[in-house]
Amino acid sequence: MPFINLKLAKGRTVEQKERFVKAITREAVEILNVKAEWVTVVIDEYDRDNWATGGELHSIKFGEGCGKMGVED
Amino acid sequence: MPFINLKLAKGRTVEQKERFVKAITREAVEILNVKAEWVTVVIDEYDRDNWATGGELHSIKFGEGCGKMGVED
Amino acid sequence: MPFINLKLAKGRTVEQKERFVKAITREAVEILNVKAEWVTVVIDEYDRDNWATGGELHSIKFGEGCGKMGVED
Amino acid sequence: MPFINLKLAKGRTVEQKERFVKAITREAVEILNVKAEWVTVVIDEYDRDNWATGGELHSIKFGEGCGKMGVED
Amino acid sequence: MPFINLKLAKGRTVEQKERFVKAITREAVEILNVKAEWVTVVIDEYDRDNWATGGELHSIKFGEGCGKMGVED
Amino acid sequence: MPFINLKLAKGRTVEQKERFVKAITREAVEILNVKAEWVTVVIDEYDRDNWATGGELHSIKFGEGCGKMGVED
Repeated sequence: MPFINLKLAKGRTVEQKERFVKAITREAVEILNVKAEWVTVVIDEYDRDNWATGGELHSIKFGEGCGKMGVED
Repeated sequence: MPFINLKLAKGRTVEQKERFVKAITREAVEILNVKAEWVTVVIDEYDRDNWATGGELHSIKFGEGCGKMGVED
Repeated sequence: MPFINLKLAKGRTVEQKERFVKAITREAVEILNVKAEWVTVVIDEYDRDNWATGGELHSIKFGEGCGKMGVED
Repeated sequence: MPFINLKLAKGRTVEQKERFVKAITREAVEILNVKAEWVTVVIDEYDRDNWATGGELHSIKFGEGCGKMGVED
Repeated sequence: MPFINLKLAKGRTVEQKERFVKAITREAVEILNVKAEWVTVVIDEYDRDNWATGGELHSIKFGEGCGKMGVED
Repeated sequence: MPFINLKLAKGRTVEQKERFVKAITREAVEILNVKAEWVTVVIDEYDRDNWATGGELHSIKFGEGCGKMGVED
């Protein structure tokens, strides 16, 4: 414990993932009062064909890819 | 809210996914009393090597693929 | 297959749940080409203390409860 | 997107949850390049009867409760 | 790793849970080639109002409770 | 019911998966008092870039691959 699962659009770099898991582990240690070695983070990356909001696939709403200006992903 | 996660065998088309997310979002709006833009649907697609029922992998039980007549996937 | 997990705020009635699982199972059968008996739906209900958007717990943003006009839950 | 699910032992205060969702949302915005309003955090809290490591339930390994010195939860 | 999540109807005893997590941890060690201390098992228990198959809630299909003869839970 | 989700590092063979789903289904039948055909097992396999413990990605901590001596995966 704790176990943290992050779901998001494909396309982040290994550097972004590394920074993010480091940051949320540090926050978990500080705020939730756990040891760093108990914190597991698992990342699920999605094609936009497999993510929808408002009843519309993001591949149709936004096109493929991630991180564009003004695009929810 | 709500957040809906659909797990199923690989092989549906983008058109099937689009119709399905549209349909369940419409039902959520109508039955659960939420706005369409609050409804998120995320799809996880599986190889049959990674799905088992009755203690047997579906790749062994049914072979690879999906949507065959009489096949649970 | 398929396995559908619905996460949402606490407070829907059994009648709403029954109508919703019936509706999405019907749509899965029609659109995803599966038999009704293969479709499993599992519902996770949340206190607003355990759901956050935009970095704020919904219990703080919206107060407790669900289904209020103009409230995301 | 992104959708973050945190699973951990029961017993954190609303203040700890509020600080934690604020912190990881801020990190997501900064590192993953998303808007704060796209970030959802959902928390699942567990009794120690329902969490095991090394083949042993935490209720047996550690007793009930959370946040004790030297206890993994 | 590995992380195992078990979802099932409410009503198992702590003894059943303890036996089950011990058994699947032992199998994971033997078959998947991991150390016991890396294996985490987390159990989610459900009311039958929150589990449906074939488009019908189990509370309606089977009544409340679990472990009855001939009842799927 | 029950629904079992196994998350682990990529790299197990179909034979290992088949043995594991058989074993945990057998244990579920025996210990949890369910029929084998009600037990579903779904496997999620991860690149080490998407799994972290102690605030560090396993791809950085251990290198790529799985099943090495002394390596947590």
